[in-house]
This record gives sequence, C-alpha cells and structure tokens, in this order.
Amino acid sequence: MGAAMDEQKAGSTIAVQAGAVAPRTKATSYPEPFASRMSGRVKRQLGDLFGLRNFGVNLTTLLPGGESSILHRHSKQDEFIYILEGRPTLVTDEGELELAPGMCAGFPAKGIAHQLVNRSDTAVTYLEIGDRTPGDEGTYPKDDLVASQDADGRWTYRHKDGRPY
Amino acid sequence: MGAAMDEQKAGSTIAVQAGAVAPRTKATSYPEPFASRMSGRVKRQLGDLFGLRNFGVNLTTLLPGGESSILHRHSKQDEFIYILEGRPTLVTDEGELELAPGMCAGFPAKGIAHQLVNRSDTAVTYLEIGDRTPGDEGTYPKDDLVASQDADGRWTYRHKDGRPY
Repeated sequence: MGAAMDEQKAGSTIAVQAGAVAPRTKATSYPEPFASRMSGRVKRQLGDLFGLRNFGVNLTTLLPGGESSILHRHSKQDEFIYILEGRPTLVTDEGELELAPGMCAGFPAKGIAHQLVNRSDTAVTYLEIGDRTPGDEGTYPKDDLVASQDADGRWTYRHKDGRPY
Repeated sequence: MGAAMDEQKAGSTIAVQAGAVAPRTKATSYPEPFASRMSGRVKRQLGDLFGLRNFGVNLTTLLPGGESSILHRHSKQDEFIYILEGRPTLVTDEGELELAPGMCAGFPAKGIAHQLVNRSDTAVTYLEIGDRTPGDEGTYPKDDLVASQDADGRWTYRHKDGRPY
C-alpha cells in the first residue's frame, strides 16, 4: 500500500461520503407555481464537487410527497437515475412504474417525458446523472411551461404562448 | 395511480433491476499484458440499455484481486464512481484511499490518474459514469501504453514509443 491520502487535498476533493455533502442551497430554478412543488426535494451536487464539467451527478432525496421535477423531457441531454433507497413512482407520459432500490432508468433526449414522485411514507434517495450538452430545451407535456438554457447553462422559463414567468 | 407500465415496452427499456442486466460480452479492449489484468472485472452497461448517447453508465463488479482499469487519466472525458458494495482501494498517482459503500469520487479530464483495485476478500460493486466527448486520449503513467479514440469511439493502443500493440 502506498501513502495514505487525505480525503481533502490541496483544495481538491478526491473522495467523499456522498450523504455528507452539503445540500444545494438553491432549491429550484422553476417559477411558481412549480417551485413550491419541489419543497420535498434535496439535491447534493456530487459531480460539481470534483470539478466535473461534462455531466452532473446529484444525490437526491425525495421526502414523502416529494417530486423530482415537473414531468418533462430534454431536447439534447440524456438523463439516468439509480435508486438507492425507497420506492419512488416513475411517472411518464406513457404510464407509471414503482421503482425499488437497485433499479435504474434512463431517459434519452427526445424520449418519453418523466418524473419521480414519492407516494410512499419513507424517504427516497437516488443518484441522477445528466450531461451538459449546450442548447438544451425542456418540454413539459402536462404544464404551461417551456424551458431553454442560455449559453451559461442557466434555465429560463416561459408560458407555452411565449409570455415570460 | 395511472395504468401499470411493463418494464419492457415496444422494444425500449424503461426501468430495470441493474444487477439483472446481462454483463458485457467483450471483457476489455486493452492489449496484453494488460487485458489479463481485467479478468476479475464484470461490466453491465446500463446507459446503453436505455439508448443514452452522451454518457455511459456501468454497474461494475470487481472480484477479489480485480482491477477497474490500468492506472490512467483522460484528456477530455470526465469520470465518476459511486461505491455500492465492498471496499475497493482507490489508487492514484498521488496516493491511495480505501473507499466504502456510499462513497463517491470524481475524476475530471486532465486530473489525477486513477484506478480501483479490490484488495479485499469480498466482491466490490460500483457505478461508473463517463461522458463521450470525442477525441479523447488515455495516458497511463505507470505502464507502456497510450490510447486514443477514433471517430467511432473505438480505442486504439500504442506503446509510448509509437509502436502499435
């Protein structure tokens, strides 16, 4: 064995216990009335912690009643989830499926619309991965919402008739 | 609750138990003598199963003595790992660290060189994520190996003096 390595070294993080990472302080970028629906969601931004740029990895907790997002699909970015704890319901525009620990699901760009909803009485924890292909748009088949990303990756939201929120 | 949804639908996979996915049949693209070192490694390609293109997600098992890869870094692609079971040793060119379930690590392009080695007597299972930014190269600080990806993402390997394997 070589020399022991501190978990924190020269300002760069090598490895951490994911659950010990501080939650993201900004709860959501959604406008109301959608932002309030995210109150049962806590995200820990694991990928950013290590300086990853090409994709994001979050450890996300959904309290009972919590939702992962508004039902949506991306135009360019892929998404992947892996369930660690609890039994969320995967809601899509083609039906629903209860997930369990050790299950995973993937959502290619322009695929089915999707969200996770925690209809159980215990917390759900999962990993979510999404890439950062620029120029992405989000479409929301059940809500009056359209999202687009600017050059810095920030989401802006409009009504479907074009009015800003 | 809406209509029940089959896990397999119209040829596209919605969600699966990750451990039930068939392992990749090609064990490694490394040339010898490196290929034989990967005999204790089993990869289940979860992202590909769902048609994801922008990044790959594997559920990887390392048997006792197994290695995740040769010690390496990427020039353009980021990597991330999340430990599900077992206690692998994270070996880098800056030291070593034993990992445990619930720990994660990230390796930005051009960062520290890294590999996982299972020095324990029980299997290690982890998720590994890597993006597919084109034109990537792999460098191997401890071995006589240089890797580059062609336009289709296939790796080709050379000795450090340029000779092919």
